[in-house]
Amino acid sequence: MRLPDFKVEQWMNVYENDAVYNLTDTCVSPLTFGELTAMDSEQSLSDLKLDYGTITGDVHLKKEILSLYQSGTIDNITLMQGCLQANESVIYTLLSPGDKVIVFEPGYQQFADLPRSIGCDVISLKLYEENGWQPDVNELEEAMKQKIRMIIVNQPANPTGVLFEKAYCEKMIELATKQGTYILSDEVYRGLADEASISDLYEKGISTSSLSKIFSLAGLRLGWIKGPQEVIDQINVRRDYSIISTGPLADRLACIALKNKEAILSRSRAIISANQKVIAAFLDAHPRFHLVMPKAGTVGFLGYDAEIDDTMLAEQLLKKEGVFFVPGSCFGSEKHLRLGFTCDCETMRTGLEKLNEFLENL
Amino acid sequence: MRLPDFKVEQWMNVYENDAVYNLTDTCVSPLTFGELTAMDSEQSLSDLKLDYGTITGDVHLKKEILSLYQSGTIDNITLMQGCLQANESVIYTLLSPGDKVIVFEPGYQQFADLPRSIGCDVISLKLYEENGWQPDVNELEEAMKQKIRMIIVNQPANPTGVLFEKAYCEKMIELATKQGTYILSDEVYRGLADEASISDLYEKGISTSSLSKIFSLAGLRLGWIKGPQEVIDQINVRRDYSIISTGPLADRLACIALKNKEAILSRSRAIISANQKVIAAFLDAHPRFHLVMPKAGTVGFLGYDAEIDDTMLAEQLLKKEGVFFVPGSCFGSEKHLRLGFTCDCETMRTGLEKLNEFLENL
Repeated sequence: MRLPDFKVEQWMNVYENDAVYNLTDTCVSPLTFGELTAMDSEQSLSDLKLDYGTITGDVHLKKEILSLYQSGTIDNITLMQGCLQANESVIYTLLSPGDKVIVFEPGYQQFADLPRSIGCDVISLKLYEENGWQPDVNELEEAMKQKIRMIIVNQPANPTGVLFEKAYCEKMIELATKQGTYILSDEVYRGLADEASISDLYEKGISTSSLSKIFSLAGLRLGWIKGPQEVIDQINVRRDYSIISTGPLADRLACIALKNKEAILSRSRAIISANQKVIAAFLDAHPRFHLVMPKAGTVGFLGYDAEIDDTMLAEQLLKKEGVFFVPGSCFGSEKHLRLGFTCDCETMRTGLEKLNEFLENL
Repeated sequence: MRLPDFKVEQWMNVYENDAVYNLTDTCVSPLTFGELTAMDSEQSLSDLKLDYGTITGDVHLKKEILSLYQSGTIDNITLMQGCLQANESVIYTLLSPGDKVIVFEPGYQQFADLPRSIGCDVISLKLYEENGWQPDVNELEEAMKQKIRMIIVNQPANPTGVLFEKAYCEKMIELATKQGTYILSDEVYRGLADEASISDLYEKGISTSSLSKIFSLAGLRLGWIKGPQEVIDQINVRRDYSIISTGPLADRLACIALKNKEAILSRSRAIISANQKVIAAFLDAHPRFHLVMPKAGTVGFLGYDAEIDDTMLAEQLLKKEGVFFVPGSCFGSEKHLRLGFTCDCETMRTGLEKLNEFLENL
């Protein structure tokens, strides 16, 4: 089952280490092992047995995860090694060759190319920048005249940061309900605002997430799926062929993180908000750039007016100025750069100024 | 892509926690977090940034892994979250619907059912207990009159503990070479004796392994693949859709383990050898039981003569005596129990005596 190169991930792999000013990272400035374990100094890891742990996932951790949602029980949750793997597992479990799947563009490549790799028919709906990156409800209605097995959304979205409007979500759920369509919502950027989860809104809604983005803990490789119990049960069958367990160490550390989620998320909100202020000032001063400032999540999609394509711009900027962006083409949209609100403000300020100077001097 | 229940894993999930005498575990008695980190007291984890780490895997760790093999470079290695996931990734990357795959029975269910789930045609060759669980070379030659995309072996094997004889391996490689057939060898039990690796013997040989079994560190969820570079490159493309990275924490801890492999493996050899002595004495005293004592690995396949099927026996033994086995039927072979050489000797001695008494009292 061949897959094409994953553009954004390959771009990150190839270029990230050369970055002096990394303005594109989706993960809020990572915590250290020491910072995390200091949050629970009473619990020592010393005696923790490094066996498989609880195969279906630590119960305490599942309870902490459940507290991020409005409904359900721990039987609606299963643990995964990151949100990407959670998505993969949902896709492999529920989709078969020939199934029709709706995705949105610009968007994260996994949602389209993983279903394609197993022979699904993928229908891509457009996000309209001129409408704040919202999709068009008429296009959804048109697409759903066919039998659709799954709609894959990303809320808040990477790279646009968009959260679909309430009316669109309601219509999507109404259409999905009629057909019994699953809605898989990658909610790895959810939790900084008061965004709803699809798993709380729709009986066939499946939410995936992880500690990698807003919790600043990508290094734990800990994610999860929340969904209907019959889906979770099927995914747990697949887990036995794939991961067995997430392991007691990741489970324990994740539990510490979620018990201290208010402190971690306050830190994240402060970092993001400070970055957004720098960006807003930059946009005011430089009309050549435009950005729909997201209401949630850690990323936005910066557009620019200049006679240089985004891949060349990103390559040259990195080479000449050390400023690192993922170009919009990695997400199916040109003349944009993915902007992460995750670094320190001085890095953001300097990096943006260097970007502007580079375009001025073209 | 629906999968059947994974019998052995489901059995473990359902029953393992009720075990008083767990005589079936494949992992040598697990180390604790404290025992592992004490092996490298100079390195503090405190400052370790919990970001994604090196996406393609920590270079120091890859070098340590390479030292377990005779050939290749670190570009022949990629990191995975356990050996199961390593196998899954090889299977998904190299196999397509309609491909023919050879596996061996009794054996580990993943090797047959994961290829089947994507539409492969699986040919199962028999392991003959009367011949020390060796397969029949004529059957292999017959099967390879067809075009075979992949042979999947497990060396040493779960549950039989068998290592194929040298002549069989040479013939298998000769036949595979003629066709360009990949040989995937799950070598998660390799390393206690001086077993060869398929990746050192055959240019299209792919070795998978992890720290879960002989290294007593299942809780790190750290495995790897060693194979031809073009295969590793393809798998690295898939990794971007699936795991991104194994993370810096698992990588760092795995590095400590492999730097101290002699100490860990000496401990494992001592535990296994002590268990095997108890088992040998038990077999001498009780002719109703038979076992081909493996030359390597952590498990063997205990046969018994009695009028009770293995699933019922395992269930009743656990319920009435607290003695835990996985029944042979989970591997496609009746009237056997999988025996792990991994617990403490007193547990092994008591558990086996209780097994014998149970059969005596039938």
